[in-house]
Amino acid sequence: MSLSEFELIDRFFKSRMTGDLHPAVSLGIGDDAAIMRGRPGQSLCVCTDVLVNGVHFPARADPSEIGQRALRVNLSDLAAMGARPVCFTLGLTLPSADEQWLSGFSSGLFGAAEQFGCSLMGGDTTRGPLSISITAIGEVPSGQAVSRSGAKPGDVLYVTGCLGDGQVALHQLDFEAAEFTAHKPALAEAAHQSVRKDLTPKDHAYLYRRFFRPEPRLAFADLARNLMSSAIDVSDGLRADAGHLARASAVELCINLDQLPFSRSVLGLTSEAERVNAALYGGDDYELCFTAETACRDKIGEIAASAGLRVTEIGEVRHGNGVSLFDRGVATTADHQRGFDHFSRMETP
Amino acid sequence: MSLSEFELIDRFFKSRMTGDLHPAVSLGIGDDAAIMRGRPGQSLCVCTDVLVNGVHFPARADPSEIGQRALRVNLSDLAAMGARPVCFTLGLTLPSADEQWLSGFSSGLFGAAEQFGCSLMGGDTTRGPLSISITAIGEVPSGQAVSRSGAKPGDVLYVTGCLGDGQVALHQLDFEAAEFTAHKPALAEAAHQSVRKDLTPKDHAYLYRRFFRPEPRLAFADLARNLMSSAIDVSDGLRADAGHLARASAVELCINLDQLPFSRSVLGLTSEAERVNAALYGGDDYELCFTAETACRDKIGEIAASAGLRVTEIGEVRHGNGVSLFDRGVATTADHQRGFDHFSRMETP
Repeated sequence: MSLSEFELIDRFFKSRMTGDLHPAVSLGIGDDAAIMRGRPGQSLCVCTDVLVNGVHFPARADPSEIGQRALRVNLSDLAAMGARPVCFTLGLTLPSADEQWLSGFSSGLFGAAEQFGCSLMGGDTTRGPLSISITAIGEVPSGQAVSRSGAKPGDVLYVTGCLGDGQVALHQLDFEAAEFTAHKPALAEAAHQSVRKDLTPKDHAYLYRRFFRPEPRLAFADLARNLMSSAIDVSDGLRADAGHLARASAVELCINLDQLPFSRSVLGLTSEAERVNAALYGGDDYELCFTAETACRDKIGEIAASAGLRVTEIGEVRHGNGVSLFDRGVATTADHQRGFDHFSRMETP
Repeated sequence: MSLSEFELIDRFFKSRMTGDLHPAVSLGIGDDAAIMRGRPGQSLCVCTDVLVNGVHFPARADPSEIGQRALRVNLSDLAAMGARPVCFTLGLTLPSADEQWLSGFSSGLFGAAEQFGCSLMGGDTTRGPLSISITAIGEVPSGQAVSRSGAKPGDVLYVTGCLGDGQVALHQLDFEAAEFTAHKPALAEAAHQSVRKDLTPKDHAYLYRRFFRPEPRLAFADLARNLMSSAIDVSDGLRADAGHLARASAVELCINLDQLPFSRSVLGLTSEAERVNAALYGGDDYELCFTAETACRDKIGEIAASAGLRVTEIGEVRHGNGVSLFDRGVATTADHQRGFDHFSRMETP
């Protein structure tokens, strides 16, 4: 049996969500966040992410950086809804009452919380294998949340920032790779092939920051939410996340691989095939992939410029379904891998 | 170093919660749930609980029962606020994509969700050591949430249902005790001393149900919320949880041990010292401990009768601080243990 994570969730959880929603809930399972009615004029977006030691961060990483990353990846889901962060709860499981670890973790967590203007409102601390579950809650003006399901044929497909940084960081940084990649055989193999010892301090600092402090695109989303027809955050790789968007919107997304945006570090450290692979299948980038009408092109450019954020057109929306890849205008079948799936790879003996 | 769980949370988390709350948040960290502004006339209560395999449930327990228990213990926190369940998010970490386990777990989880009228609204499934993090959200009419901090000298102290069932269940049921109690040395020792092989089918069924399907006292709390001056749910043992109530309300709680309510099963299976110990220090009962003015005595009795729920006066509120124990009117120093603390016991070599 080999069920992917998404198939599992669909089979056992989404398929059961057929009943009426409570009147306090506007949008249930299946988007980056669920939506509830909030104070007058506002909706609340609620999303949960779990980070497990050795799967989502290296076992011996700086606890302060783990705290930063744990909150930031949750806030990225809020950004994908066009919401502003309000507060969050923390479910923390720890193997022991390690004061030093807790001190570092909490300083990183609260550092990120202060930066993004949200406060810890409650939670639960318990003993067990290290994992961090955060439920983040944000506000969005009623009726203005951006879902995954609004992409229309003719819309332009965009992505914020640069892709592939998360994956290249995993390959290049000294993450005790054997331990961390134990659960990701494909990644471990790639790491063996491409690890370079000549990482410059500048590249190291850039990739380290991109891995532990992904930038939730909240400011941009706050300004652009009414221009976006659909959005998702790229956490499992562009191919898989664009697939979610295509499915929810019942459209085909065409991605031009030669237009994917890469950082200077990634351009210098990888071959073209490696970086396209990292963008499509790597995950951990936490950028926004979104669609907008062509008429919004100029406004999106202006907002991006005002937010100091690179926003790149990478394709278009068509009638159809699924994700199609093009390289310099030619359809390509580079579609031989899949976005990071927490389960399917381990099914292989 | 030996820091208890509560001291740890205080030191690293609560102490940082000094800033202004977001205008959407009414009550932050430190109660059974945090409170946010909801749809008109309603507040939202938000609480998070984490259940870890081998700590909060036996490793090989029926997955359907694990699903029931996971949601029920969260809803108990909502009951302690006087809130009605609305929805919840699920952070599920699993060692493998085990279809059979997921089928059982989801059937138990959705069974409880349907029974208590709340729906799964989102979440995250990932790979790692089995643990379940649920954030439950409930509604309460604005301004009517019951906090831990409203107990007043002269109030009566009550508890719903029976105490000690959770702990006696752990001792008596065939839970592969060696594995499950590995993290609870005191419990493992007690289990060795008191395990009885002559459990009747009736006692077995009762204790099994009480452990896996604790009854969140939602119906009673919904009717009695305006009579309660303070409330908490008894998850870590009456002694520890009454201590939280006393501290939050800045009062002394006097508990009459000879008035503690016990089930027929517990009365038959334990000595008086064993069951008082189980009630005070055992945890896992998920009953409500609450206070109310003496003038509300009759009304509380009527509501309890209408809800078909045993509600017992177990003491009173005085000026002072902390929890004082009395046995047949005489102060007792039975206070030699503490509520279940996920960390402190493991510090002992």
